[in-house]
Amino acid sequence: MTANQHSQQHTYIAIMAGGVGSRFWPASREAKPKQFLDIAGNGKSLLRLTFERFLRLVPASHIFVVTNEGYRALVKEHLPELQDGQILGEPSRNNTAPCVAYTAMKLYQLDAEANLVIAPSDHLIQNEDIFLDNIRHCLDFTASQEALLTLGISPTHPHTGYGYIEYGGQSDSPGIYAVKRFAEKPPVEQARAYLASGNYLWNAGIFIWRASTILEAFRRYAADIYEQLSPGMSVMNSAGEQDFINAHYPATRSISIDYAIMEQADNVYTLPAQFGWSDLGAWASLHEEVDKDAEGNALQGDQILAYDTHNCLIRAPKGKMVVAGGLDDFIIVDEGDVLLIFPKSREQEIKQVGALVRERFGTDRL
Amino acid sequence: MTANQHSQQHTYIAIMAGGVGSRFWPASREAKPKQFLDIAGNGKSLLRLTFERFLRLVPASHIFVVTNEGYRALVKEHLPELQDGQILGEPSRNNTAPCVAYTAMKLYQLDAEANLVIAPSDHLIQNEDIFLDNIRHCLDFTASQEALLTLGISPTHPHTGYGYIEYGGQSDSPGIYAVKRFAEKPPVEQARAYLASGNYLWNAGIFIWRASTILEAFRRYAADIYEQLSPGMSVMNSAGEQDFINAHYPATRSISIDYAIMEQADNVYTLPAQFGWSDLGAWASLHEEVDKDAEGNALQGDQILAYDTHNCLIRAPKGKMVVAGGLDDFIIVDEGDVLLIFPKSREQEIKQVGALVRERFGTDRL
Repeated sequence: MTANQHSQQHTYIAIMAGGVGSRFWPASREAKPKQFLDIAGNGKSLLRLTFERFLRLVPASHIFVVTNEGYRALVKEHLPELQDGQILGEPSRNNTAPCVAYTAMKLYQLDAEANLVIAPSDHLIQNEDIFLDNIRHCLDFTASQEALLTLGISPTHPHTGYGYIEYGGQSDSPGIYAVKRFAEKPPVEQARAYLASGNYLWNAGIFIWRASTILEAFRRYAADIYEQLSPGMSVMNSAGEQDFINAHYPATRSISIDYAIMEQADNVYTLPAQFGWSDLGAWASLHEEVDKDAEGNALQGDQILAYDTHNCLIRAPKGKMVVAGGLDDFIIVDEGDVLLIFPKSREQEIKQVGALVRERFGTDRL
Repeated sequence: MTANQHSQQHTYIAIMAGGVGSRFWPASREAKPKQFLDIAGNGKSLLRLTFERFLRLVPASHIFVVTNEGYRALVKEHLPELQDGQILGEPSRNNTAPCVAYTAMKLYQLDAEANLVIAPSDHLIQNEDIFLDNIRHCLDFTASQEALLTLGISPTHPHTGYGYIEYGGQSDSPGIYAVKRFAEKPPVEQARAYLASGNYLWNAGIFIWRASTILEAFRRYAADIYEQLSPGMSVMNSAGEQDFINAHYPATRSISIDYAIMEQADNVYTLPAQFGWSDLGAWASLHEEVDKDAEGNALQGDQILAYDTHNCLIRAPKGKMVVAGGLDDFIIVDEGDVLLIFPKSREQEIKQVGALVRERFGTDRL
């Protein structure tokens, strides 16, 4: 058995699908967040796209989804290939660290050599071939080393909405570097300096490690979480799993994996990657990522006519005709029961608008 | 019996409801023109509003509707009080002169003293009391004189979309003047001169006359139409009426009543009126006429939020939530299957857009 075959046999994917994604309102709602939507306009939800991407790497039985218990039915609907035991239901929202610990425990109980990828369910990957090559390279690395590996995205512009990773010396594997430090979301001047320096990457929240490695890191750097959850190891993948989680998970500290582990550990590595990535933070970033016509319009729908209209994102349900005239840089989203028309550059104000909607019309459509 | 009682007994109303009104697309469609829509946003169609306005003057049995045969079912739906015989179905669109001749023949056969009002079905009247007082005054005048009387609207601004009426000396009835001439839609400088002169009125297409008077005018000034239709007089209001009309009406000349009669006759009078009138030519004029909020927005719908939005007309079906941000002077009309967003000042381009829609998506929604 080659190292590569060994690696494949023990490879697992954990897709994080618990987020709310309220910035895609009115397409996203509290009851149906972003990862369950066809945000890219190609007929498939972001969760489904993520799942199918990893199906090229492992069989469906090796793919797990971590979500809020309230979204379990939606996950089953979008990924009918999954068995119930492959869906990890969080009874509370405690940020990513407890969620990663639970996942690692469950996979370690299943396979002590489990080597896993943790990936968000709601990001866009433009070049899947490069992405999967990068992931394979990372898995080979973590299969043979006690390493916490994170994919770093080579930045294309001084984005102020992402955390950055500063990387240092190369590891013994070409293309993989030791992480010097994690940096918070920077002001734009700082972001420009990071870009100029050439050794900063965007932190995309895609992690690769063995279950045993990350559990050891928890034991060292987030002992409280480890102590709260590790007594449940023996009931993982059994009828007792959900009961244990329901009883103990909500009491864990709400903290991100970056704060709890990545910024503390000394065995953190990164692979600078260039596969065309976007976290699709909101409508404007979606407009940036998707295909546009000669006028810069992204039209998601089957009967949309943009007349003297430029740089707009127009999205409408199947069968709805939209005629938009004289608009520049607008988001137009018709979701059947809600229509939003808003300047793209003022997208951050949609949150305030949500508060006004709540006040005037109640929460039914939020 | 007083003159007034005599007048009431022989008073009839003919509502013209054959128009297409394509300028209210996407609310209006070829299959459902403007007069059948709740354009004012008060729960009633323009046709219904017109009918109820005249119900204050005469019983329902004295109100007739002239429409295209294709809209007969719609008329019955909106005005269930009407008997079949009160709906005149034109088998072809031949402009207003043949339509007026047919109406006059039918009412003359019913009542040789018939004194009638011809009124469009799709205009807005702001002050109904003044309107009805004016109409009563006109009916009294035409009951006793061989006069062709037209209501003239005192102009409020130099509108270039209306024809004008120049009036001269006063008749023997106070407030009613002889018409000197009809003037075509003027350029704006001309319109300003008309306004300044003080003796020009807008031609609103509201006529008052006895059936016998207008039939005599047809005999004199549009003898061809008179000769084509008058042989049908004896079958009016009988089973043979529609057959006769179907056979002979389509062969009549397509010409307006203004060209065919009003500009020729020498017994034409007008009553300058001020009851707040609009022909609701298109969305922008609707926006001008209806109630607006402090930001100048006319919101027709139950869940519309206008955020930093001014001077817009926003119309949506019951139950649809609309959030519009950062828009000035736009028309936003959601009709369920079609959404139109267009600059109010460029409304005349909607026609071109219609051609593009036809080309790209077919005629289903036009």
